[in-house]
Amino acid sequence: MLWHRPDIGMNEQKVDIKTPTLLVDERKVRHNLRTMLAKARHNGSSLRPHFKTHQSATVAQWIRDEGIDKATVSSVGMAKYFADAGWEDLLIAFPYNPLEYEEMTELANKCKLSVTIVSKEALDHLNAHVDAELDYYIKVDVGTHRTGISSTDVELINHLATSANPKHRLKGILAHAGHTYKPLDAHAARVMFDHAIEQLMEVKQAIGQEELIISYGDTPSCSLLDEFPGIDELRPGNFVFYDVMQHYFGSCTLAEIAVCMVCPVVAIHPERCEVVVYGGGVHFAKESISELGENVFGKVVALSGRSWDSFPLARVDRLSQEHGIIKASEEFVQALKIGDLVGILPVHSCLTADIQPHYQALDGTIIEKWNKS
Amino acid sequence: MLWHRPDIGMNEQKVDIKTPTLLVDERKVRHNLRTMLAKARHNGSSLRPHFKTHQSATVAQWIRDEGIDKATVSSVGMAKYFADAGWEDLLIAFPYNPLEYEEMTELANKCKLSVTIVSKEALDHLNAHVDAELDYYIKVDVGTHRTGISSTDVELINHLATSANPKHRLKGILAHAGHTYKPLDAHAARVMFDHAIEQLMEVKQAIGQEELIISYGDTPSCSLLDEFPGIDELRPGNFVFYDVMQHYFGSCTLAEIAVCMVCPVVAIHPERCEVVVYGGGVHFAKESISELGENVFGKVVALSGRSWDSFPLARVDRLSQEHGIIKASEEFVQALKIGDLVGILPVHSCLTADIQPHYQALDGTIIEKWNKS
Repeated sequence: MLWHRPDIGMNEQKVDIKTPTLLVDERKVRHNLRTMLAKARHNGSSLRPHFKTHQSATVAQWIRDEGIDKATVSSVGMAKYFADAGWEDLLIAFPYNPLEYEEMTELANKCKLSVTIVSKEALDHLNAHVDAELDYYIKVDVGTHRTGISSTDVELINHLATSANPKHRLKGILAHAGHTYKPLDAHAARVMFDHAIEQLMEVKQAIGQEELIISYGDTPSCSLLDEFPGIDELRPGNFVFYDVMQHYFGSCTLAEIAVCMVCPVVAIHPERCEVVVYGGGVHFAKESISELGENVFGKVVALSGRSWDSFPLARVDRLSQEHGIIKASEEFVQALKIGDLVGILPVHSCLTADIQPHYQALDGTIIEKWNKS
Repeated sequence: MLWHRPDIGMNEQKVDIKTPTLLVDERKVRHNLRTMLAKARHNGSSLRPHFKTHQSATVAQWIRDEGIDKATVSSVGMAKYFADAGWEDLLIAFPYNPLEYEEMTELANKCKLSVTIVSKEALDHLNAHVDAELDYYIKVDVGTHRTGISSTDVELINHLATSANPKHRLKGILAHAGHTYKPLDAHAARVMFDHAIEQLMEVKQAIGQEELIISYGDTPSCSLLDEFPGIDELRPGNFVFYDVMQHYFGSCTLAEIAVCMVCPVVAIHPERCEVVVYGGGVHFAKESISELGENVFGKVVALSGRSWDSFPLARVDRLSQEHGIIKASEEFVQALKIGDLVGILPVHSCLTADIQPHYQALDGTIIEKWNKS
């Protein structure tokens, strides 16, 4: 019985995990971090990891232990949480939200804040309303078509580069290649990277300020590639945890996935080779990948003590609000009983992590995180 | 400019909504409640609404105002929250989780608790471990194939009906017709209902206890049908809020949707008729429907004061972690500016509501809700 803790059973020893619980393996997080940091150093780039994935001051401390002292966040509220936790150099890599100018002013007075500008209107608002020292990055759309300016819009580029309020400084040019979020190999990632860097260099040349930094970094590019010529700052986020989707994209091995949801088995249906666990959309969030025409909402792995084996034994076929339905082999189904615990690697760790009130370390310690208020 | 508050602009009056905020229209909630309650009364059924949708003691109080004093919940933690809020008759409509027997024992000593039994093993565990007075329901699988026993498994039915611990009482037979969650008309819903009731009656007859109640109720069936012969207790949940998915299924009008997310506009792309709002997967959860081959992650409506018009003006085409990308007409896009607020009707209000720290009433009052700890 590889697939569940032999020491956990309904009538056996006291089980301290009773409800869906996201385990974080610190050793894997540190491995993922060191791998990425070595890559950044090899390239002469600095690492400004995106904290939207873990949202935790404790995980952030592990990152600080590696000598990293700057971070990326995705909201003003998250910036405030990390500023309160002692982070002094924070970039909000989300389009400047005019409605939060007061909160950003307050933050800029407290730490070294950078914001992201995607339009003339945003810069004009920032200039008029944020009376505090801060840096801003111009976001360039390198192919994702979500936000960002075009590298060919010279008039706009010049406006954004030359209209700063004297308290504000244009620090760099930023891109997020979200179009890399699909199954890729290193060659395809390189083609996308080359195209992106070309556009970023075009913008830098149009501005003509040598000191401007180029900031880049989605987890697939940063994982698949080893060389990042021209990039001063890397901003991947997901890589600290990775997940089934990143494995599917080619960014990581299953063994590098640093989070695993522990779920109690609540029903078993041998007649259709299904196991129902306590663990649904409100625990995992509802993202899936399709493999061989089958939906995968998570991959089931064996728990051993508080750790897990990375070899997938089954898949989560569907999720409702609190239920997860596992499709498995007859052997797997037969070996389980209700009250057993199974491990499930999440499909998208950023969204899964976001909805946890906290995590658990492998030694059972609670790992606190930011909770929106 | 129908589609945004004319009084909200970047340089205009003070705006008190600055980040994605889920508004709840109490008037609509009460309308939805009264409609469902009238239907239940017409049928001589009682209403035990599912609180997993709103998860809020305040919304629960509106329900109590209509004379309802029993509720359904989807987890032990949620049951504890509502028991603490004064609800004395609670059904956990989720398969009995052996690992939480201590918490259920505690709850059963505090309120009138009912649990859901889906297997012999679950009942055996309940009998052996929960030394407190409680009721249990047997769950029958009427076609959803998620959990529940088969109506033809007479041996199991007899075991479940006759093996209760003396402190426990078999109260009823319960089903959730989750296979109604698709576009339906009243005729199709009736066929499904008739098939379900036939199976539930079979089980009741096999047990032969006249006092057993039949408990039923998914929002599509309860919304589309007017007559529920044989049903003693109705348990719909989503109907208090409804959502775009339920409208798509045929369960409600758009005007009956009682929740709307207010999102700030942060980027505008007239060249591709897109508007980017602050409001992503971490605010909406990531469910979508497909209409005319297009993904819909939310429907954009006009805000007027703190209320909203129900006529959809555009659709949310995709969501990333914090971004929502709206596809709209040229006219809609032209009329907006960054810092404006738009309203978005969520696709699946249960999941959207679950991830809110709280809601806002139309008068700006904060509506507290349960937050997992």
